[in-house]
Amino acid sequence: MKKILLTGFVPFLNYSINPTEHIVKQLNEQTIGNYEVCGRVLPVDFEKSGKQIIKHFEETEPDVVLSLGLAAGNVKITPERIAINCNDGEADNRGSQKQDQRIVSDGPDGLFSTLPIRKLVNGLTDANLPAAISNTAGTYLCNHVMYTMLHQVKKEGKATRSGFVHIPASHELAILNPKLPSWSEQDLLRAVTVIIELLD
Amino acid sequence: MKKILLTGFVPFLNYSINPTEHIVKQLNEQTIGNYEVCGRVLPVDFEKSGKQIIKHFEETEPDVVLSLGLAAGNVKITPERIAINCNDGEADNRGSQKQDQRIVSDGPDGLFSTLPIRKLVNGLTDANLPAAISNTAGTYLCNHVMYTMLHQVKKEGKATRSGFVHIPASHELAILNPKLPSWSEQDLLRAVTVIIELLD
Amino acid sequence: MKKILLTGFVPFLNYSINPTEHIVKQLNEQTIGNYEVCGRVLPVDFEKSGKQIIKHFEETEPDVVLSLGLAAGNVKITPERIAINCNDGEADNRGSQKQDQRIVSDGPDGLFSTLPIRKLVNGLTDANLPAAISNTAGTYLCNHVMYTMLHQVKKEGKATRSGFVHIPASHELAILNPKLPSWSEQDLLRAVTVIIELLD
Amino acid sequence: MKKILLTGFVPFLNYSINPTEHIVKQLNEQTIGNYEVCGRVLPVDFEKSGKQIIKHFEETEPDVVLSLGLAAGNVKITPERIAINCNDGEADNRGSQKQDQRIVSDGPDGLFSTLPIRKLVNGLTDANLPAAISNTAGTYLCNHVMYTMLHQVKKEGKATRSGFVHIPASHELAILNPKLPSWSEQDLLRAVTVIIELLD
Repeated sequence: MKKILLTGFVPFLNYSINPTEHIVKQLNEQTIGNYEVCGRVLPVDFEKSGKQIIKHFEETEPDVVLSLGLAAGNVKITPERIAINCNDGEADNRGSQKQDQRIVSDGPDGLFSTLPIRKLVNGLTDANLPAAISNTAGTYLCNHVMYTMLHQVKKEGKATRSGFVHIPASHELAILNPKLPSWSEQDLLRAVTVIIELLD
Repeated sequence: MKKILLTGFVPFLNYSINPTEHIVKQLNEQTIGNYEVCGRVLPVDFEKSGKQIIKHFEETEPDVVLSLGLAAGNVKITPERIAINCNDGEADNRGSQKQDQRIVSDGPDGLFSTLPIRKLVNGLTDANLPAAISNTAGTYLCNHVMYTMLHQVKKEGKATRSGFVHIPASHELAILNPKLPSWSEQDLLRAVTVIIELLD
Repeated sequence: MKKILLTGFVPFLNYSINPTEHIVKQLNEQTIGNYEVCGRVLPVDFEKSGKQIIKHFEETEPDVVLSLGLAAGNVKITPERIAINCNDGEADNRGSQKQDQRIVSDGPDGLFSTLPIRKLVNGLTDANLPAAISNTAGTYLCNHVMYTMLHQVKKEGKATRSGFVHIPASHELAILNPKLPSWSEQDLLRAVTVIIELLD
Repeated sequence: MKKILLTGFVPFLNYSINPTEHIVKQLNEQTIGNYEVCGRVLPVDFEKSGKQIIKHFEETEPDVVLSLGLAAGNVKITPERIAINCNDGEADNRGSQKQDQRIVSDGPDGLFSTLPIRKLVNGLTDANLPAAISNTAGTYLCNHVMYTMLHQVKKEGKATRSGFVHIPASHELAILNPKLPSWSEQDLLRAVTVIIELLD
């Protein structure tokens, strides 16, 4: 049995629900496809989130790291192609705001996902779940965690595959933030399950 | 047992699937809440669709007429507030195109829905399904059918309540038309069921 | 020389600039095409705005009433096809909020614009300014003023043509509200000038 | 007098006008701020566009390379933060389509723009022109040209600053492709002029 570290985030900005938190808690300790799921919820915090995912990585020694994030406005499941070496955007949950700042001072500008993103998109679509590759994970905490993890694996010279997938808002969240496109939590949960089943 | 005439449409324009067609076929002859459902699929045709809904109305003698239409781009279920006395927009499935043309030459400019649209929105939201009142049903076949039916009921002096609800694309359709927001067919079907259950 | 009553609105909701206010002030007392412009700025207030536009109408005795409103999110100039007999939406500038309320208790559900909206759209497009007919003016103050004025003219049995045109945000406003599409004030001003020149 | 190589593209996909082509032709051989402008129009062609920009670079020996591209759907001027080592997306003007393919087989995954993108955004905003940093130039020809040029400069060890700026559709184009947000050509031209004036 292989192991997957599945991360989500707590709520942030004006989104009082983060569907990735629910998904991660619900799938924690479940077996999906070839994987035992280790679910962990990360803080929306530039100082802590990177350290925490690395700590979870060291503790769980997973074969795959799959990080999930909410992309408010997304109409599809979007595996991210690349993480970039940049912190920017709104203040995090602790009020810390970054602008045009490198995550790793001597790190490369960008790092491609090592998940099979094309296969994931095709497999989700086959399962009747709209999906597409995204070419930016932004410059906020999602990108921060994705870059941090990819850089760590590379630095350690490990074979662990790692990457990030953004998901749409849930219906529950869209009822509170009325302009957001949304999926049912059931659809979101099924999408993450399908993704894990598609991994070798 | 009361009766509801539930209408949907066939596919149109570049949308090769119309989720309202599937819903109407699936709910036909079912009993939901206090209603026996008479499901009928209408053509996307300025000449025929109005005549057909009136024919179905006369044959089924329903207590309520609920017409469904696809609103490609919608992120919610949207009961329509008003139908307007205007045919306009792209050509229909027979190639007939209208511009700024009255539906009923001496009919009023607008006719409000006689469904309890606020109650529907609140009830859908309570059922965790994003919903909002829409203030335009457009000027294409959806508005045409809504106006035609409301005008007919008024002309005949009947008490039948009548109105229109637009629904988002299904995941199936969004996979073919990649920019559309979408819901699973299951969510769409549940929304229509909830609406019928909310009717007195 | 004919006379046109041109109205705009003060800022509202979280839009701290209302480009229609600037346009109306700038065109006030100018002569455009066959028209002398009487520019008036209306409050965003369900109690007062209708009374004020009627007062301006009585004082100026115009041949045409053209009301302008900001449609945050619009990418074009959109002459409105219809006003509906409904107050709804967010609270106005005095904190008064309406829901599903008729504007005129015994008024018709909808009233078509009596401006030549198709001609305006074609003329704007010919002038290289994107334009389209809109089928809803919403249910907030814009629709309120449009309905009130159309109903008043009808009630008085006058020949005055009356209608509403929504415009996009200005660049100035979009800089403060970062997701809005916008035009330069110069383009917005040119659009309103073109509209007046198109009137007989 | 310094020299700037300013590139645009010919029309592509279903956009029969490319405003960057007009801008580049109009500013060619003009002096703006400290720069003499060398304007060149590139083909939308995965095989040729990279070779051509390098050829123009060698011939003109500029101090700065500024490439422009149309971002249909953009509501602002968006200097790009990063180019990524990937060709993907729709077929180019010669019918050649790429998927998940590296541009430079042994090149880095991403390369940051070496233009002062934050300064450009601030300066454009000060000039009342909405602007924001974009974190993805996509994976089509715009990104291809941006990556190719940044990689070439790096490979040659030169100090030339290089980067890419996406612009909204022009009103002219939006009239042909009706859902696009747009600016007047005059605003677009002013934006590019402001950018060049902001360069040291």
